[in-house]
Amino acid sequence: MGGDHGPSVVVPGVRSYLRTHGGQGVRFLLHGDEAAIAPELSRCGLTELCEIRHTDKVVAMDEKPAQAMRRGKGSSLWNAIEAVKTGEAGGVVSAGNTGALMAISKLILRMAAPGLERPAIVASWPTFKGVTAVLDVGANIGSDAEQLVEFAIMGEAFQTAVHGVARPSIGLLNVGSEDMKGNEQVKEAHAILRDGPFELNYQGFVEGDDIGKGTVDVVVTDGFTGNIALKTAEGTARYVSALLREALTSNLQAKLGAAIAMPALRRMREKIDPSAINGGPLLGLKGIVVKSHGGADAKGFGNAIRIAVDLARSDYMTKVGANLGRLEAVFDHAAPAGEISGDTPQ
Amino acid sequence: MGGDHGPSVVVPGVRSYLRTHGGQGVRFLLHGDEAAIAPELSRCGLTELCEIRHTDKVVAMDEKPAQAMRRGKGSSLWNAIEAVKTGEAGGVVSAGNTGALMAISKLILRMAAPGLERPAIVASWPTFKGVTAVLDVGANIGSDAEQLVEFAIMGEAFQTAVHGVARPSIGLLNVGSEDMKGNEQVKEAHAILRDGPFELNYQGFVEGDDIGKGTVDVVVTDGFTGNIALKTAEGTARYVSALLREALTSNLQAKLGAAIAMPALRRMREKIDPSAINGGPLLGLKGIVVKSHGGADAKGFGNAIRIAVDLARSDYMTKVGANLGRLEAVFDHAAPAGEISGDTPQ
Repeated sequence: MGGDHGPSVVVPGVRSYLRTHGGQGVRFLLHGDEAAIAPELSRCGLTELCEIRHTDKVVAMDEKPAQAMRRGKGSSLWNAIEAVKTGEAGGVVSAGNTGALMAISKLILRMAAPGLERPAIVASWPTFKGVTAVLDVGANIGSDAEQLVEFAIMGEAFQTAVHGVARPSIGLLNVGSEDMKGNEQVKEAHAILRDGPFELNYQGFVEGDDIGKGTVDVVVTDGFTGNIALKTAEGTARYVSALLREALTSNLQAKLGAAIAMPALRRMREKIDPSAINGGPLLGLKGIVVKSHGGADAKGFGNAIRIAVDLARSDYMTKVGANLGRLEAVFDHAAPAGEISGDTPQ
Repeated sequence: MGGDHGPSVVVPGVRSYLRTHGGQGVRFLLHGDEAAIAPELSRCGLTELCEIRHTDKVVAMDEKPAQAMRRGKGSSLWNAIEAVKTGEAGGVVSAGNTGALMAISKLILRMAAPGLERPAIVASWPTFKGVTAVLDVGANIGSDAEQLVEFAIMGEAFQTAVHGVARPSIGLLNVGSEDMKGNEQVKEAHAILRDGPFELNYQGFVEGDDIGKGTVDVVVTDGFTGNIALKTAEGTARYVSALLREALTSNLQAKLGAAIAMPALRRMREKIDPSAINGGPLLGLKGIVVKSHGGADAKGFGNAIRIAVDLARSDYMTKVGANLGRLEAVFDHAAPAGEISGDTPQ
């Protein structure tokens, strides 16, 4: 029921997923208002593969997370997450209220390790070399060194499960590449990743322009910086695209040139099409939760479904569990000696 | 002598400044190797307006700031800054080692107020509405609330002096626009800017995509986030431009279309030409210091000169001095009462 469009995008999103990504054997539970969902299902010819779980109650897009937690029980969002908890569903995809999705997921599913505080959101970022996973972009604030290492562990497993990279390279976002650069959290996380027992392909510090270059497969950063970097990049891409559109419609000659080059320009547009990279998983939970952009179209929602299915079918959970265990050992071992000052799990 | 090209760009940069920006009455002291500078000066016909201050000594591009401070005396960088201190020059422009420029400027010129710790670097960011000043992008780390307020004060005066905006609007970069969003520093700076005695046109929080939209004239952020946002935006612009180039050369038909639309595409390229916005002043010093990108061409270096001249000829210093005085009053007054927890000036 969430997002800007509700069932009129979610149901065609299921169809788009099945057409584009196959999805043999995948079935869908659709939580929400049966009267709104059923007509969409028959229109899309999906009544066989989908089952409606009716509820009248919805979490509004502008509801505060704390309020949603208190009052959300029985809502479509709540029930969808509950189905993951009970094992009935392998994962949940929502275009709804991000704060509420995060808070209720944490409440119902719980975090995957005692050291984890809040889920991290991953952005799949188009680059010269393919797609780089950037996390956290979820507007969490103030990640300490331990959290940054957790992001590296989860981002690596995500990149393998969803983008099929066998041994993803990992970089830590910083303002320079030398060891002495950056704030304390970044320097400490750098030391742990470099010397820790994680069997990660850690490449050291990267800078802002390395994201678009595709220098590494996974870029790790705190939720404050990551969210600002992501939105700044979106703003920049929009600005350059608008300048291009303006230039190519500025006079008759430009319009003629644009018309002739249109097939090539269209292929270019597909490469930076937001719907091709839509779907930000909330990592660190005991269950698969994927956030679709509220304004995503059917193709975009279909891609968010693909991410959820790929994660659910992979060994992502096992792999992350193993490395998070190693991380806790690092902190249990090192913290009493005073060598590592990050928060230890309580 | 600094930057990737030395006098072969600096001297044509002076010519570009004079041709493009007029600069009536401006004269130049060129510090460095006479044997390298003199031929460039006669080639560019600038022997009248420029005076060479010879020195053999240079600060290398990869020299550490601490080393440059110890050993830099008598170098071209040192002498150029010294000339600002003595009042012989109204400002200094350098394409050299950024860390050394910052450290030696601070040593020779000193900070403009006791609360200021390090210079802030401003980026002039092209937007839908013109140019927005973003600071700090200088890879400083961990700015507290007081520093963020200082950035707002200095950025406002800069925007008026250099980009001619009468009453610049100011935004604080954050992960959301509600009062409760963000880390402690950002929330505290928000309260001071909103309620303080600065007569600033403060508009509240802005997000990453507001920079490119030109929502405000000045965007304030800490040096860590600002540096990453700037480099991420540069990387994104480069990525989109490369996709466009690739698309328009992908086959004969696309090439034909591109050739026809070329005049319009060329005008577009000028709008995002880095040399048109080159020149990042180091704000907060008792003197005008402008950093040119090391790889800037003559046009870019000329633009950095323009920024230095505009700042030197404006009432920037007086205006900043007045508002920094008010800021100190805020902290002297409020800190003992425990209401504002930022560092007070020592």
